[in-house]
Amino acid sequence: MKKIRMGMIGGGIGAFIGDAHRRASRICNDYELVCGVFDVNYEKSQEFAKNEGIAADRCYKSVEAMLKAEKTLPAEKRMQVVTIVTPNALHFSFAKAALSAGFHVVCEKPLTMTVKEAAELEKLVEKTKLTFALTHTYTGYPMVRQMRDIIASGALGTIQRIDAQYYQGWINSIIHGTGSRITGVWRLDPKHAGASSCMGDIGVHAFNLIEYTTGLEIKEILSDLNPVKDGIKLDLDGTVLLRFSKKLKGVIRSSQVCGGEENNLTIAVYGSKASLKWGQENPNYLYMLSDTEPTKVFKPAHGYNDKLAESSHTMPSGHPEGIYEALANIYKGAAKSIRKQKFTAGEFPTVHDGVRGMKFIHAVVESNKEGNVWKKV
Amino acid sequence: MKKIRMGMIGGGIGAFIGDAHRRASRICNDYELVCGVFDVNYEKSQEFAKNEGIAADRCYKSVEAMLKAEKTLPAEKRMQVVTIVTPNALHFSFAKAALSAGFHVVCEKPLTMTVKEAAELEKLVEKTKLTFALTHTYTGYPMVRQMRDIIASGALGTIQRIDAQYYQGWINSIIHGTGSRITGVWRLDPKHAGASSCMGDIGVHAFNLIEYTTGLEIKEILSDLNPVKDGIKLDLDGTVLLRFSKKLKGVIRSSQVCGGEENNLTIAVYGSKASLKWGQENPNYLYMLSDTEPTKVFKPAHGYNDKLAESSHTMPSGHPEGIYEALANIYKGAAKSIRKQKFTAGEFPTVHDGVRGMKFIHAVVESNKEGNVWKKV
Amino acid sequence: MKKIRMGMIGGGIGAFIGDAHRRASRICNDYELVCGVFDVNYEKSQEFAKNEGIAADRCYKSVEAMLKAEKTLPAEKRMQVVTIVTPNALHFSFAKAALSAGFHVVCEKPLTMTVKEAAELEKLVEKTKLTFALTHTYTGYPMVRQMRDIIASGALGTIQRIDAQYYQGWINSIIHGTGSRITGVWRLDPKHAGASSCMGDIGVHAFNLIEYTTGLEIKEILSDLNPVKDGIKLDLDGTVLLRFSKKLKGVIRSSQVCGGEENNLTIAVYGSKASLKWGQENPNYLYMLSDTEPTKVFKPAHGYNDKLAESSHTMPSGHPEGIYEALANIYKGAAKSIRKQKFTAGEFPTVHDGVRGMKFIHAVVESNKEGNVWKKV
Amino acid sequence: MKKIRMGMIGGGIGAFIGDAHRRASRICNDYELVCGVFDVNYEKSQEFAKNEGIAADRCYKSVEAMLKAEKTLPAEKRMQVVTIVTPNALHFSFAKAALSAGFHVVCEKPLTMTVKEAAELEKLVEKTKLTFALTHTYTGYPMVRQMRDIIASGALGTIQRIDAQYYQGWINSIIHGTGSRITGVWRLDPKHAGASSCMGDIGVHAFNLIEYTTGLEIKEILSDLNPVKDGIKLDLDGTVLLRFSKKLKGVIRSSQVCGGEENNLTIAVYGSKASLKWGQENPNYLYMLSDTEPTKVFKPAHGYNDKLAESSHTMPSGHPEGIYEALANIYKGAAKSIRKQKFTAGEFPTVHDGVRGMKFIHAVVESNKEGNVWKKV
Repeated sequence: MKKIRMGMIGGGIGAFIGDAHRRASRICNDYELVCGVFDVNYEKSQEFAKNEGIAADRCYKSVEAMLKAEKTLPAEKRMQVVTIVTPNALHFSFAKAALSAGFHVVCEKPLTMTVKEAAELEKLVEKTKLTFALTHTYTGYPMVRQMRDIIASGALGTIQRIDAQYYQGWINSIIHGTGSRITGVWRLDPKHAGASSCMGDIGVHAFNLIEYTTGLEIKEILSDLNPVKDGIKLDLDGTVLLRFSKKLKGVIRSSQVCGGEENNLTIAVYGSKASLKWGQENPNYLYMLSDTEPTKVFKPAHGYNDKLAESSHTMPSGHPEGIYEALANIYKGAAKSIRKQKFTAGEFPTVHDGVRGMKFIHAVVESNKEGNVWKKV
Repeated sequence: MKKIRMGMIGGGIGAFIGDAHRRASRICNDYELVCGVFDVNYEKSQEFAKNEGIAADRCYKSVEAMLKAEKTLPAEKRMQVVTIVTPNALHFSFAKAALSAGFHVVCEKPLTMTVKEAAELEKLVEKTKLTFALTHTYTGYPMVRQMRDIIASGALGTIQRIDAQYYQGWINSIIHGTGSRITGVWRLDPKHAGASSCMGDIGVHAFNLIEYTTGLEIKEILSDLNPVKDGIKLDLDGTVLLRFSKKLKGVIRSSQVCGGEENNLTIAVYGSKASLKWGQENPNYLYMLSDTEPTKVFKPAHGYNDKLAESSHTMPSGHPEGIYEALANIYKGAAKSIRKQKFTAGEFPTVHDGVRGMKFIHAVVESNKEGNVWKKV
Repeated sequence: MKKIRMGMIGGGIGAFIGDAHRRASRICNDYELVCGVFDVNYEKSQEFAKNEGIAADRCYKSVEAMLKAEKTLPAEKRMQVVTIVTPNALHFSFAKAALSAGFHVVCEKPLTMTVKEAAELEKLVEKTKLTFALTHTYTGYPMVRQMRDIIASGALGTIQRIDAQYYQGWINSIIHGTGSRITGVWRLDPKHAGASSCMGDIGVHAFNLIEYTTGLEIKEILSDLNPVKDGIKLDLDGTVLLRFSKKLKGVIRSSQVCGGEENNLTIAVYGSKASLKWGQENPNYLYMLSDTEPTKVFKPAHGYNDKLAESSHTMPSGHPEGIYEALANIYKGAAKSIRKQKFTAGEFPTVHDGVRGMKFIHAVVESNKEGNVWKKV
Repeated sequence: MKKIRMGMIGGGIGAFIGDAHRRASRICNDYELVCGVFDVNYEKSQEFAKNEGIAADRCYKSVEAMLKAEKTLPAEKRMQVVTIVTPNALHFSFAKAALSAGFHVVCEKPLTMTVKEAAELEKLVEKTKLTFALTHTYTGYPMVRQMRDIIASGALGTIQRIDAQYYQGWINSIIHGTGSRITGVWRLDPKHAGASSCMGDIGVHAFNLIEYTTGLEIKEILSDLNPVKDGIKLDLDGTVLLRFSKKLKGVIRSSQVCGGEENNLTIAVYGSKASLKWGQENPNYLYMLSDTEPTKVFKPAHGYNDKLAESSHTMPSGHPEGIYEALANIYKGAAKSIRKQKFTAGEFPTVHDGVRGMKFIHAVVESNKEGNVWKKV
């Protein structure tokens, strides 16, 4: 099958996340990188393009130039999809421009800086009917997909509590280092990171994972955020009370100052008949608990899994696949959509998931600002 | 060494918790059970006494009778300490009577039904200078004690977040069974259980574990409780936001409706230099995380542990000790106090811990009732 | 119910294993310690007896004196069972004397120093019809008992491989310490430990666990032992190839020089339909693997367990019980036998298990001596 | 940097291992697939080439034709390295032909069918000075490389025991299925699989892992193999006693009939000062045990790791990488060698590792055939 021609905005030399996206696109093998604006510095962008084997005339000076030029190329050569891996503040304008120019989009999260922008993008996607994939990477793990399927089957009975966590500790080295480094970190600067650090960067993943796996919407939240240290303008830590309905409550706990935690994202969904627990650091294990039976441990590459979960793992059982393969699964799903092949809801997160995420971040920040009161999501 | 003569109130035939206390007292080998009021039904109480080898004339008809009679016995025969393992609502009056009659007390948690009662008991203990041990059993685990010691040493740096959890699922079988069973369970009845089910029974253990291991006081809380099902009068589930100081926050999560969870009590204390994590279901493993070094796993019976932790485990390393041994450690500590031997703070929870627990339960219930607002503890 | 009157040989001040036996007997609450010869040094023995509250006239100067005197006591006062917790070399003569005098016996493993002695004891037990419990403690764990029951049910299909391990590291501190300490450790001295250190002390537990859980007999073995260091006369390490039948093979791996291992005893039984894995350091988890279903984790205190497994755990699920409770379960089984109550095979290891163990040790040592050849067990 | 032009022999449509190699080469991004003989059926090979975007004229009818044609291409277009992913029996002749024609080789294990063939290839590699990478994939895991480095540093003291395991259960479905399926599986046919199934396919990985991580050579082995079922001609299960020196022994356990085991490869190296344990199914955890300190858990992406281990993981800590990334690391190492860049021993397994593996398989089969006797490796 012919590869999908992909452009990239951002992600040049030294950019960790751009590299991850390219690896993922190569793993699933449905894409070829043909053009891009890899760096604001054009020379650096060119250097990157050369290393990567991109034709020099398709390394563009600006996004505007790229979109304009690519539109004029013959259909069989023209970029089909553009991946946006810039800092958060630039997602909106580039995504809007790309969609408006008729290109599919793969975009890093968070979708935008504001709920309003997010809603505007959602409308644009509906109007253009283009594919828009938001890379909430963790939804690409086979066992997360299996979790979603088990819950959809009703096997848990009535859901009674939901608890998600995302703990990291890496920001310790920054906030407890020299003062000068604090200002240097864009994630701690509202102009670049948006209204939130911890909740905007990682708490929102926990939020997304809850809505992805359960199919439920969080209706209201009450948050208590913590900048932890004097001089920090954004939250580095916080807890969010969740209400799904009158009888179903839960919690999201998230922090960037949990010394020694690496990337400890977990989710637990407790039901009247059974419960499910999953953790990102050992992603190939899904635990199903019940009051009356032994705990069951689901793993990938087994006939007992759902079809989507199974197709999300390529090695035989016991050969661990990881985060790159999860992201590749999302690229794989987006490729199906771009090629107008049949695909299942859940194969990639959409612009709607992005809108939900922005509403969550907004509500969390407002709740905290107003003195820990309930806010609608 | 001569055994301490112990009486017991409650804990007769079929009483699980009374059996646990007796086992623990036998494990540490510092006590002999000499008298008691084991059941409100005197015949059943006598049957139990006979089985247990208690002299018939020391199986009493009432607590009043017991206290009166034992006081008149010669010093070398007289009961020295009384263990109270009745339903919650009776703790206060029996504890008060026992202290007033000059007897040491071991009491199950929660200490009382109200903060006022708790405060009264605390004053009585101060006045009588008698030993009062509250069996927050989990503080008897060697690795919990090691955690307390490491934190006291300052090895964690500045504490930045605290997260404790107590999840169980056993109440599912009751609330999802027949309606009649709901009313039959005293824990769901405010008259017998007090103002709270979940927080009063288990959330308070998480609270106690936090204050025990860190030496910190929780200043304010905001709670959101959930009765989960129509017709239930008490909380079966809830989340409590915690504030220790302006910059230190945390959370307690507790539930009795987490299907499949057994007795999943965990605590994590995150510091700027290192962090500690412990879980009750694998109590012999204490994890120390840091951003710069491999995670360290502490286990009992090693020279690297603190003195109190080490003396709380009798087998060589790798021979797991469990919950009965933890309770025995508390009995051991109380015995030292009763015998006026030297002991360390932390060897057994005191009446003060009970007062703190009652304040916590009270604040949690009030916060929820008033619409999830901050309350002082 | 009246307690069983127990005597003890060995286990005085400072004796770890005697303390463990007494704790276990107190936990199950079926015994009272009434007499003993606790130390070869009579004064020390008396000191111990006094501490323990044993009547001075029942602290005897010798085993011979004890057996003689106790026989003459009135039936309702007389010792009923004697626990032998001396060094290995003394087990045989004391057990023989006790049985001959009409007393039930609880004996530490290994049963004897030679196969011949073991066989003699077995005959004596058959002849006297007295209860003889050998404390292979690990068979008292609920999940080991559950494993035995599942295997007996045929749920594993055809057993295809068996693998057991017992790794410790504690002897490192001795053999890598000063030379003088080597001779000081009785376990390294053939006169006191018998023909083997590692296999005789711990390998035999792995052997016993295999035969206990599967009900199979190991027919032939081939061993390769390792004294590890010059000057050591006994094996500190070794591997034993196992043959159960023409088509079923397995392995026992055992070592005392695995630096950092604490008490790492594991067993895995692999069948054509399913498999079971258990490890002593987390004794409340039993894993059932299959090629077609999620792994199942069995835990104590659940209705899905077998009756014997269930009755071997007293706390609600999630409250970990440990090694003392395992030993107490064996004491509990022996008590049933002594009281002529109904009990199940498997409630305590018998003299026959001791004979099997001695045959195993003998075969292992001979196989190694003769150049790693097959030997019958 | 310019990509290395790679050809492939085997690995066409439906070939799992070929796909894995291509993914790995794409992940590390140092290769482009330019030609191949992907299937013995030329039409199928062409279909595959078309799907993959390979020029039609570089999809060859035979290996001979490919080597001949590619040699005549201009240097900047010509294939540089050929990956051999055919059934085992074909490795030797294709590798020999490729080396003789001047091409670098990446070859799946086992290297050849016989020790003699392996030795011949080793000589040819020495003579041609070409790069020869043998894909013992597990050596590509960061924590395996960290293990090698820690051992090389001497931190374990004197190594006292080595224990490796490779357990799978997948062959159960074949041998317990219909008779016809047995003959259909090439791994059970000596003509295609060689002298061994279990040891040749997976036991040899355990062997390789031991020699890779410790730098030690296994001198002698004694094996006991088990075909498990009547009619099976090769070993499906076995245990191998190991001798490294007079005082250092160990064991390799390997089986394909361990029902429910997925890909359970483990290694433990026990030293007088410390020990290391690693398992393939959770490859990002390396455990360091000691008798005097808490167990340490090493994970990738931390400054405390060795340089090679660190460069073998690209994501931040806590983002699990898996088996494809391990294989990509080996491709990365081979690329450095092909490009004559500086690289470290250990970055990819060599033809010498292949020779060692063949000697191991040969010795294991001979030992078993001759009645479980010691054989030199």
